[in-house]
Amino acid sequence: MRPSQRQPAQLRDIRITRRFTRHAEGSVLIEAGDTQVLCTASIEENVPPFLRGKGQGWVTAEYGMLPRATHTRGAREAAKGKQSGRTQEIQRLIGRSLRAVVDLKALGERQITLDCDVLQADGGTRCASITGAWVALADACALLVAKGKLPASPLKDHVAAVSVGLYQGLAVLDLDYAEDSNCDTDMNVVMTGSGGIVEIQGTAEGEPFSRAQADSLLDLASGGIAQLIAAQKAALAQALASAA
Amino acid sequence: MRPSQRQPAQLRDIRITRRFTRHAEGSVLIEAGDTQVLCTASIEENVPPFLRGKGQGWVTAEYGMLPRATHTRGAREAAKGKQSGRTQEIQRLIGRSLRAVVDLKALGERQITLDCDVLQADGGTRCASITGAWVALADACALLVAKGKLPASPLKDHVAAVSVGLYQGLAVLDLDYAEDSNCDTDMNVVMTGSGGIVEIQGTAEGEPFSRAQADSLLDLASGGIAQLIAAQKAALAQALASAA
Amino acid sequence: MRPSQRQPAQLRDIRITRRFTRHAEGSVLIEAGDTQVLCTASIEENVPPFLRGKGQGWVTAEYGMLPRATHTRGAREAAKGKQSGRTQEIQRLIGRSLRAVVDLKALGERQITLDCDVLQADGGTRCASITGAWVALADACALLVAKGKLPASPLKDHVAAVSVGLYQGLAVLDLDYAEDSNCDTDMNVVMTGSGGIVEIQGTAEGEPFSRAQADSLLDLASGGIAQLIAAQKAALAQALASAA
Amino acid sequence: MRPSQRQPAQLRDIRITRRFTRHAEGSVLIEAGDTQVLCTASIEENVPPFLRGKGQGWVTAEYGMLPRATHTRGAREAAKGKQSGRTQEIQRLIGRSLRAVVDLKALGERQITLDCDVLQADGGTRCASITGAWVALADACALLVAKGKLPASPLKDHVAAVSVGLYQGLAVLDLDYAEDSNCDTDMNVVMTGSGGIVEIQGTAEGEPFSRAQADSLLDLASGGIAQLIAAQKAALAQALASAA
Amino acid sequence: MRPSQRQPAQLRDIRITRRFTRHAEGSVLIEAGDTQVLCTASIEENVPPFLRGKGQGWVTAEYGMLPRATHTRGAREAAKGKQSGRTQEIQRLIGRSLRAVVDLKALGERQITLDCDVLQADGGTRCASITGAWVALADACALLVAKGKLPASPLKDHVAAVSVGLYQGLAVLDLDYAEDSNCDTDMNVVMTGSGGIVEIQGTAEGEPFSRAQADSLLDLASGGIAQLIAAQKAALAQALASAA
Amino acid sequence: MRPSQRQPAQLRDIRITRRFTRHAEGSVLIEAGDTQVLCTASIEENVPPFLRGKGQGWVTAEYGMLPRATHTRGAREAAKGKQSGRTQEIQRLIGRSLRAVVDLKALGERQITLDCDVLQADGGTRCASITGAWVALADACALLVAKGKLPASPLKDHVAAVSVGLYQGLAVLDLDYAEDSNCDTDMNVVMTGSGGIVEIQGTAEGEPFSRAQADSLLDLASGGIAQLIAAQKAALAQALASAA
Repeated sequence: MRPSQRQPAQLRDIRITRRFTRHAEGSVLIEAGDTQVLCTASIEENVPPFLRGKGQGWVTAEYGMLPRATHTRGAREAAKGKQSGRTQEIQRLIGRSLRAVVDLKALGERQITLDCDVLQADGGTRCASITGAWVALADACALLVAKGKLPASPLKDHVAAVSVGLYQGLAVLDLDYAEDSNCDTDMNVVMTGSGGIVEIQGTAEGEPFSRAQADSLLDLASGGIAQLIAAQKAALAQALASAA
Repeated sequence: MRPSQRQPAQLRDIRITRRFTRHAEGSVLIEAGDTQVLCTASIEENVPPFLRGKGQGWVTAEYGMLPRATHTRGAREAAKGKQSGRTQEIQRLIGRSLRAVVDLKALGERQITLDCDVLQADGGTRCASITGAWVALADACALLVAKGKLPASPLKDHVAAVSVGLYQGLAVLDLDYAEDSNCDTDMNVVMTGSGGIVEIQGTAEGEPFSRAQADSLLDLASGGIAQLIAAQKAALAQALASAA
Repeated sequence: MRPSQRQPAQLRDIRITRRFTRHAEGSVLIEAGDTQVLCTASIEENVPPFLRGKGQGWVTAEYGMLPRATHTRGAREAAKGKQSGRTQEIQRLIGRSLRAVVDLKALGERQITLDCDVLQADGGTRCASITGAWVALADACALLVAKGKLPASPLKDHVAAVSVGLYQGLAVLDLDYAEDSNCDTDMNVVMTGSGGIVEIQGTAEGEPFSRAQADSLLDLASGGIAQLIAAQKAALAQALASAA
Repeated sequence: MRPSQRQPAQLRDIRITRRFTRHAEGSVLIEAGDTQVLCTASIEENVPPFLRGKGQGWVTAEYGMLPRATHTRGAREAAKGKQSGRTQEIQRLIGRSLRAVVDLKALGERQITLDCDVLQADGGTRCASITGAWVALADACALLVAKGKLPASPLKDHVAAVSVGLYQGLAVLDLDYAEDSNCDTDMNVVMTGSGGIVEIQGTAEGEPFSRAQADSLLDLASGGIAQLIAAQKAALAQALASAA
Repeated sequence: MRPSQRQPAQLRDIRITRRFTRHAEGSVLIEAGDTQVLCTASIEENVPPFLRGKGQGWVTAEYGMLPRATHTRGAREAAKGKQSGRTQEIQRLIGRSLRAVVDLKALGERQITLDCDVLQADGGTRCASITGAWVALADACALLVAKGKLPASPLKDHVAAVSVGLYQGLAVLDLDYAEDSNCDTDMNVVMTGSGGIVEIQGTAEGEPFSRAQADSLLDLASGGIAQLIAAQKAALAQALASAA
Repeated sequence: MRPSQRQPAQLRDIRITRRFTRHAEGSVLIEAGDTQVLCTASIEENVPPFLRGKGQGWVTAEYGMLPRATHTRGAREAAKGKQSGRTQEIQRLIGRSLRAVVDLKALGERQITLDCDVLQADGGTRCASITGAWVALADACALLVAKGKLPASPLKDHVAAVSVGLYQGLAVLDLDYAEDSNCDTDMNVVMTGSGGIVEIQGTAEGEPFSRAQADSLLDLASGGIAQLIAAQKAALAQALASAA
């Protein structure tokens, strides 16, 4: 039995609030149960040095966690003077996942930065970041089209992410903190709207897992991703109040 | 005429939401117009090295701004590897202001850290941080009393802060970004519930200001602080839903 | 056709030289084709602060690349003053992979650090690091037994790693640099001697990959790992010249 | 009674030595009692990136304290690898104060950097820095005129700073260390030669202060500033030995 | 009697292996007894900012030590986030020594970086670095000539380095770790093929040394350098297998 | 002919002012021509971690240069966030030189830190630092004796330093900046009062130098050191005004 009483294949409640803050070209608060991540998309009309003059754009991501997003306060990375290995690993993953569904040539010589800041953490923050950041990115791309800067959105597909894991021997979907901190295996899966796999990151926390277990985790993830992409579509279908 | 159509002595709408997130001992979202700051209070049962064994507690603050809280994206301080001089100046101010109304001996050998993170910026973030952090601190102190760790709250008084300034020659209260970025003089004033002054920080951005102008700014601030402290009292008067 | 003329399921020549340097408790040069990594194991008779007094040991890893291990010179991380996100990601992976096969309680309150330094890079350096570091770790554990500090080796199993990927649509084993820099999908797989999976890290560099492709890549990896573990066993079977 | 036996409104002896060192375009040793600050002005014929091509100059300041300027040795900031929040706060204040009396357009596209290094500290180092740096700046501006690079000095007015405070309930001028470390309220005031206020920074160290106390502190500061500006004028009136 | 049983004026066995790794324009493993340093030369077709447009090239060096090159593991400088004073001192010495024998104008506007990484340390690593780096530099220069980029090698002479010291009152040549850590005086001498002195760095570790002792140490060094330069010549005389 | 019209073996005018500042246990301004260095000695009643419980003391040094000590302003190391290789090299040299004449066991478990801060630079700052720091150290040791903390000074001898070099083919003593920046060879020599050599650091800036030239430089240095030590003795012979 899962601590949250959920069924093995049951996602947490998901809420996606667009235009959560007003300055960013895309601003999304995504909530997966008690996990809350603010994802903003910022457009800059230039590209990093390594891409200058190459006729293409760039999409990148940064990730942070407010010091008291967690059960006990963590040290502020700005005060420590460096980002942890975990933070860098996560923001590299978010950036790669989003770039997988963007036509960078169609984006033109501009960069979109997705800032994913965790306001409250209850497991699955990197997956929620990817799923939410995609919606913020979609809003930013729509704005580029609305302003006549692009003829069409450079987004080729949806992308979303979910965690799966082995909790007390059982394959379960969308682990919360209570499960995540006690599971044997934790796997993050990133997939597109058309079912392609973008990333698999599976780690045995305790005992190694078998190929059969890997297969059942991938099956579970695939079902979860489909629901998350449906939630993205529902959020985008709602009219967005015009910005002040 | 002020860009926001407010009267010279009119505050922006103020909203104080307690228990905005669930892990912190105090968690307050304060909104002053479009400025939004999340203030959390975290209790730790030890004190920094310079206070060990001295029979007193400590209250400190850290300040941050999400990269896209502002009109254009600012670099993430954690990625740059250091906090700016402005950030350090602000967090030192917040800490000093709060300590002015805490009986550190009565707090016992524990530390309360106030994290003030700006989700959206429209001027006045340091003042909103102080006003909101005081409420989060009050909730944390109440929790210490409720848990039997302290016989009574170590808070001696309220404290709140407001900015005043000279905008096109006119003394105005509670500057928003449109005013703040075009004013001649900007003054931040921190005062207690009983009307004592804790901090005055006044800066001529353009022309120096006269003593008479300084006097009128201090008068204006005093009236604004009274309203902010009333808002703190109203927020604390509301029953707090019990934590899940 | 692969640039190296290898068959799709063919590993590069693998060479494992034990006691490559003389001060470390384990010192292994692993060569996979032109990739060369020096892996040393260093025993310290204490544990990091978070484990003190918990009656268990720790195994950790650090990774580095000599500036001219690569085709063009890379900046020295010590001179830049920080380790890149890629470096941190890799050393975290190596540490997790090794800990999966160590009985940390049986190790006692000591730490073994595996330093994996790339002398020459031609793709697959993180996988070679894991495979080679395991041998250095085995030598260090044997030394602890030989010196009477442990009754038996705390190693529970072998662990090795290999990369697989989709190169021009074809699933291939053990990518070298020519393949790695042009592949569509790159997957690193870490497995134990008994066939358990410790890590899967698969990334679509270009197009997303299908579940069927993921399955064939995992199959390929499984075969490669078996050969690598055979190479580890062969290396350990050789008598080690006594240290001077 | 003040520890130094001074009257409440009495400044410490002030000495201003121009051309204290020979390489800088302005070099002033200012002594206020036992506080000694070396202020140098360095002209560079370019401006920081954010001002390039805007047809104006810039004035900025840096502040430092020799490790043994104080009663007990403080760690060297260069060795610690960062400037403290206090240092940054002070150097930002010095820069703002000086810019308030410079016509940056008239300065042209060049930068003048004021380095204020405390050789010996006995309270009031930031105020002495401002008062002394203004004289160094005046010498540097005079040199620009003498060399024919500017038709007239871009200085619009004098600027000087003094501290005032409540010491044992009494409002006193120009606190030394013995007073500063035991006062209830400490206020730094920066004013121009024509009596305009540039900065007020008042902090209650112990009990909050009343508006009436604030008023009496500002009165006291105003009188002290007038004397400091007279000292600046006297220093500038002396012929400067020609540089070797 | 020396711990290694060597005669006072006897060098350790010296081995110089060219093309030890394959990407660098010069790659030399130098072994002096148990000290092993990998020296690579990397050519870049531009110069550092301070030399741009001056019609000359630059030669520089970086030095590092693998964490377990030594008897006990040293912290990795990349992980600590800075290079030690010792490391910087050594790499500055290597760079100066090599530049003494290069015609920088003849090199043209390009830079050659010598990376000296210690794989195993047994005393004398800075001297071995200089001696080995010269050979790597010679190979890189020869490559520039072979590719037609330069008409002739810009090398004006050989350069090599050796340590001498007072060990138990006796002047000895080429100290190993057992001697180095117990000697009274340690002197590193860098000389050219024609017998010119490039650097003398002599330090009394215990008692000061006399002028007569200094003289005998310099005599000893001169003989050692001659043998090291002969070893460089022998190494260069061997045909180099063509790169794959 | 030397730019300063001095004879080849003529030192610059040397002035040693004791008790230049008042907080430090020793405080010396040393002037060698236009070079001015403030050397303070600070006593701390504990030792660094690597010496705890070993029954001995420690003497260490730190070196800095005010940004405008030089002809053109140099960046402040505290602002850059790190000390240059040159700074570290110099402070290591100062520390080693002083320790050569201190009986560290007799000093007891305390540390004396010598801060050498260059107020004005005209060549030879590291040598002036050593010569001046020794006097500050002597004053600090005398204070320990005067206070009854030590029965006798732990200083075993004087130590002083001077530079010598080849300027336009001529061996000259005590180079100033005009000579230092144009010389062929620069050698810093540190010697004791009894004529022992503590350090020789000789560098060929242009052409290598011969053994005969090295000999003549060492002769010249020896004579200069004798004069510097006489100046130290003269300075110490003067009565020191009692501290206020």
